[in-house]
Amino acid sequence: MAKKRILSGMRPTGKLHIGHYVGALENWINLQDDYDNFHLIADYHVLTTTLNTDDIYNNSIEMLIDWLSAGLDPQKNLMFRQSQIKDHAELHLILSMLITVNRLERNPTLKDQVRDLNIEHIIYGHLGYPVLQTADILLYKGDLVPVGEDQVPHVEISREIARKFNNQYGVVFPEPEPKLSKFARLPGLDGDAKMSKSLGNTIFLSDEPEIVKAKLKKAVTDPNKIRKGDSGNPDICLIFAYHKKFNPGEIEEINAGCRSGVLGCFDCKMNCASKISSLLAPIIDKRQYYENNLPLIKDILADGELKAKKIAAATMNEVHEKMNLG
Amino acid sequence: MAKKRILSGMRPTGKLHIGHYVGALENWINLQDDYDNFHLIADYHVLTTTLNTDDIYNNSIEMLIDWLSAGLDPQKNLMFRQSQIKDHAELHLILSMLITVNRLERNPTLKDQVRDLNIEHIIYGHLGYPVLQTADILLYKGDLVPVGEDQVPHVEISREIARKFNNQYGVVFPEPEPKLSKFARLPGLDGDAKMSKSLGNTIFLSDEPEIVKAKLKKAVTDPNKIRKGDSGNPDICLIFAYHKKFNPGEIEEINAGCRSGVLGCFDCKMNCASKISSLLAPIIDKRQYYENNLPLIKDILADGELKAKKIAAATMNEVHEKMNLG
Repeated sequence: MAKKRILSGMRPTGKLHIGHYVGALENWINLQDDYDNFHLIADYHVLTTTLNTDDIYNNSIEMLIDWLSAGLDPQKNLMFRQSQIKDHAELHLILSMLITVNRLERNPTLKDQVRDLNIEHIIYGHLGYPVLQTADILLYKGDLVPVGEDQVPHVEISREIARKFNNQYGVVFPEPEPKLSKFARLPGLDGDAKMSKSLGNTIFLSDEPEIVKAKLKKAVTDPNKIRKGDSGNPDICLIFAYHKKFNPGEIEEINAGCRSGVLGCFDCKMNCASKISSLLAPIIDKRQYYENNLPLIKDILADGELKAKKIAAATMNEVHEKMNLG
Repeated sequence: MAKKRILSGMRPTGKLHIGHYVGALENWINLQDDYDNFHLIADYHVLTTTLNTDDIYNNSIEMLIDWLSAGLDPQKNLMFRQSQIKDHAELHLILSMLITVNRLERNPTLKDQVRDLNIEHIIYGHLGYPVLQTADILLYKGDLVPVGEDQVPHVEISREIARKFNNQYGVVFPEPEPKLSKFARLPGLDGDAKMSKSLGNTIFLSDEPEIVKAKLKKAVTDPNKIRKGDSGNPDICLIFAYHKKFNPGEIEEINAGCRSGVLGCFDCKMNCASKISSLLAPIIDKRQYYENNLPLIKDILADGELKAKKIAAATMNEVHEKMNLG
């Protein structure tokens, strides 16, 4: 039986951080043997929230290096840029005729973004980004989309659009299904619920051990635990959230030590830093290898784009045929 | 000095009627020696108001035959289908990031369509059709867009988007200007202000003289002029509107005859029919030639699409470069 196809992507905003790793990349790596994997560098999606494209190419390359360094095997994953395959835009245009403005305005993620980014007048292409995502998925006939809980409404829009197309013109597309990942979000170093480059509260996958230590040193903890000996509440401490993820074996000991006061924040943070750096060490090694072999990176990208283009072209031929476009 | 470039298009909804001729085609023919002419068969635009594409290819071919039969010279005009050049969709996607939903909702033509077509929930791609039109124009760096008064707001949107792109990424596009045509609209045979295939009130460019006569016979005239001898009011008579266009030399005589009652409606209509058929005779002849030489039609289209693709690709290379898309 053919493997099911996974379609996923990220916006290229530069080097990735451990929030990306935990929220998506680790999941992709775990899935790479059992599925047919397509990973999109969603450079056109960047435009929905910023028009500045000064670094868009470099950011795409940096992100690809992070993907590879973290463990995505180019033999098992197609990796390619949206902007290099015009079929994304063409399918997007066609699918944009299959959904109402009203339906897109009800997208809960959009509402959150409008609030978070203080958007007064929403951009037309921003309103339609779930349509572009749908095109990204359907173009490769993706069966599964690995997402966090918050992205499920987008996959629902994709399913609706796929159904609408199939009903109108004949079956071309599978209705993609969300594949939920368990550990979706890591808090930022400042205590914000989300680790995010724009908030400056991240640990990058490329951060050397000294940097990880320095960043954790400054991280926010339970404000009531001022010095070793004070009792702390791990449930509200972001360092404890990191331990849960990166140091699961010591969780009970740390929990007890924090609450009793035996464990001080500094020691707790340095322990956490060393666990994070253990995870990052092989990633940093591989990154160095790829940084010294940039032509290899470009070859991997060119190969991914060549293969993706062929598949995209075959889908669009089917679409043209079903629609009698001649 | 290089000729200025004209960009214009029509939706392929089948055979053209004399309303299209008067509203656009005649104008295109008059301009073809003095400008560099690009004429788009806007098949993707059809989707903004109907998803049915059963006849979209045949309609495109029929329209092209009408264009050629009416006098568009394939040596002087590039003619091509939107759906065959993916760059339209790609530029549309990029430009969709440069305009707000709010700005598009203020488009007066959209408001008219929503009212006329009884649209309850507007389709996302329908809201954005001035963005697609903008992509159609800018992709070929069109300087001038021949339009009627009602289309001027669209060209204004195109100018705004061109300016926004140029300011953000560097100058690639001219700001296109509307080129107003004088005689923009012909009333329908039923007295409706607009001749339109969907209203069934048209005279096709391919209508033989007997059909033109039969259609005019049934046309609505001044309801107060029941028989020859009655005084009529040419100002409210669609036949008089046709005379103004197709029989300008007899206008004063017809005006006086109608008002005095000397001229009866039947004679007036048959006179008008013969003038219209004089205009259509060479068009019908040429149509027959092209219908008997369909491979020639396909060659003209293939040639137009090949040339248009090259120009479109060059523009998109510039766009990619300015945006650092790599």
